[in-house]
Amino acid sequence: MVFELLKHSTKSRARVGRLHLPHGVVDTPVFMPVATQATVKGQPFRFITEIGYRLIVNNAYHLYLRPGTDIIKQAGGLHKFTGWQHNILTDSGGYQVFSMGELVKIDPDGITVRSHLDGSYHKLTPEKVMEIQNIFAPDIKMVLDDCPPWPATRERAEESVDRTLRWATICKQHNISDTILFAIVQGSTYLDLRELCAKELVKLNFDGYAIGGVSVGEPREFTLEVVQFVANLLPKDKPRYLMGVGTPEELLEYIKLGIDMFDCVLPTRYGRTGTAFTSEGKIVLRHSEYKNDFNPIDPTCDCYVCKNYTRAYIRHLFNADEMLGPILLTYHNLYFYKRWVDRIRDMILDDAI
Amino acid sequence: MVFELLKHSTKSRARVGRLHLPHGVVDTPVFMPVATQATVKGQPFRFITEIGYRLIVNNAYHLYLRPGTDIIKQAGGLHKFTGWQHNILTDSGGYQVFSMGELVKIDPDGITVRSHLDGSYHKLTPEKVMEIQNIFAPDIKMVLDDCPPWPATRERAEESVDRTLRWATICKQHNISDTILFAIVQGSTYLDLRELCAKELVKLNFDGYAIGGVSVGEPREFTLEVVQFVANLLPKDKPRYLMGVGTPEELLEYIKLGIDMFDCVLPTRYGRTGTAFTSEGKIVLRHSEYKNDFNPIDPTCDCYVCKNYTRAYIRHLFNADEMLGPILLTYHNLYFYKRWVDRIRDMILDDAI
Repeated sequence: MVFELLKHSTKSRARVGRLHLPHGVVDTPVFMPVATQATVKGQPFRFITEIGYRLIVNNAYHLYLRPGTDIIKQAGGLHKFTGWQHNILTDSGGYQVFSMGELVKIDPDGITVRSHLDGSYHKLTPEKVMEIQNIFAPDIKMVLDDCPPWPATRERAEESVDRTLRWATICKQHNISDTILFAIVQGSTYLDLRELCAKELVKLNFDGYAIGGVSVGEPREFTLEVVQFVANLLPKDKPRYLMGVGTPEELLEYIKLGIDMFDCVLPTRYGRTGTAFTSEGKIVLRHSEYKNDFNPIDPTCDCYVCKNYTRAYIRHLFNADEMLGPILLTYHNLYFYKRWVDRIRDMILDDAI
Repeated sequence: MVFELLKHSTKSRARVGRLHLPHGVVDTPVFMPVATQATVKGQPFRFITEIGYRLIVNNAYHLYLRPGTDIIKQAGGLHKFTGWQHNILTDSGGYQVFSMGELVKIDPDGITVRSHLDGSYHKLTPEKVMEIQNIFAPDIKMVLDDCPPWPATRERAEESVDRTLRWATICKQHNISDTILFAIVQGSTYLDLRELCAKELVKLNFDGYAIGGVSVGEPREFTLEVVQFVANLLPKDKPRYLMGVGTPEELLEYIKLGIDMFDCVLPTRYGRTGTAFTSEGKIVLRHSEYKNDFNPIDPTCDCYVCKNYTRAYIRHLFNADEMLGPILLTYHNLYFYKRWVDRIRDMILDDAI
């Protein structure tokens, strides 16, 4: 059993559970820090562990390009290559093709992409994506999906669902047995296509289900509608993962709709560029009002950074282009996200939401 | 008493001692990591403390320019501004003027420099430099000196000694009483001028003596000759600081000549650019031979990085332009320097060198 449902809210569709994964138990709802290139940017893994994270996201496509499958195979998989001792989920790369604009073409049998590193061409098929992930040996693998941008015509969305279903079937066939594989629901903003995709994937009995193709430019109401609709179609005893989302407020909303897992670059990207998440909203530390503000980033936060450093000092680091600025602020933002989701979990357990 | 001499080698002029400073005891010989802009690049202070460092170098001139004296004054000094809880030595900025080529002119009463940040002009006088350092409140302050480049004519070297002596006198007069101030011996490669400078400074009774104006382009033999000559002129009961030096091998040589304190950017700069210090010499981790080398950076090293990460992974981080590469390698290099100097200290205690 991968997912253990501990509590279902009586006030919303929010759930509290646990993921039982090869590298340990993970409480849900869970936010997963993004470590695209096998590192959470600027954070030694001891920081990630100290904050309390036990599950991070690596990107199989990026790591296939660099350092390459051979090196990770020789190392004995991603855990041995990176030294991270807890759980890893690998994204297959379908979304990166969308987000990085490296797509060359999509065929019925796969996606041809052009490397942003050296311009070389690579065909990602479901077989290939599973071959890579089987070598990487993460704790959770993702199927290859066809993620269309928004807006998509109905024809394009139908095609996407057709391919996503076919590729999911192939991925399942090529997955090493007794390892965990999640499917991805596509269908753009067409609810009947989302329903078709979800129901067919559920028939294939995956270990978990992701909702993909949201936060790709569509208006927020559409995202909410799609997530609510799809979450209701997914089995209660399997984890639900909303890919690439979101702000702290969004996490709360989607948790109330029944989502268990999230990943997003916001805390790390904002951390690198000088924006802090605080209990009173986001603040831009570069602003001159913080030049002699000797308070912690967030006076209500008890993280290592807030206990030891001031806004004025961190602002100085950003102004002086010192690496320590991004390092410290990323740490704080990841801590903020962890604490935020932990509190939501407590509220669900208390039947407060 | 600032300096406590514990042992003098019978085989060389090497000494073992202790600095008694406001923020705790520091064993000598000691290497001091450079934190020019109030941060050891890429290292949260907890790493610096964990490695074992209790004394770091800040640059008063850089911090005077940015974030500015006012902000550090409002914070209550450098310790409160940065959060570093151990000892700080502030360099006055005389050397930066030399090394950054920002010098506009040197008068009998001070140095006019042009800011590399905004092109503004600033006159550093001994009075000004002490005013800044008195506000910064480090554990050890340095006088303003006139550091000529190599080669210097005898006339230029005489002028440098004349100014350095006069400025040292003024600095001492303007230092807050009962705070620690070190003088700097100049005189280029003219031994009689070095002797004059050292003897006159010793008469003024400073808390410690630095040897400046070495490693400024002169041949190595000259450096050794100057250091050996000057070290012998300095009082046994005061610490001796060789500024801006050096490689691990150089540290050993100069310790044997009686030097107690060093600072150098080598471990941090090499750490940022991909070169590791190891027990078998320097290695350039970017080289392809390390792409599938799953050994630690230095198999004989027991630092956090060597216990948790491989050469192949760190090489990947550098190739992928990931901040974590510089962070981890700087940590290791600083650990290497600490362990190196600690071993030399043990060897002196054992009368092995």
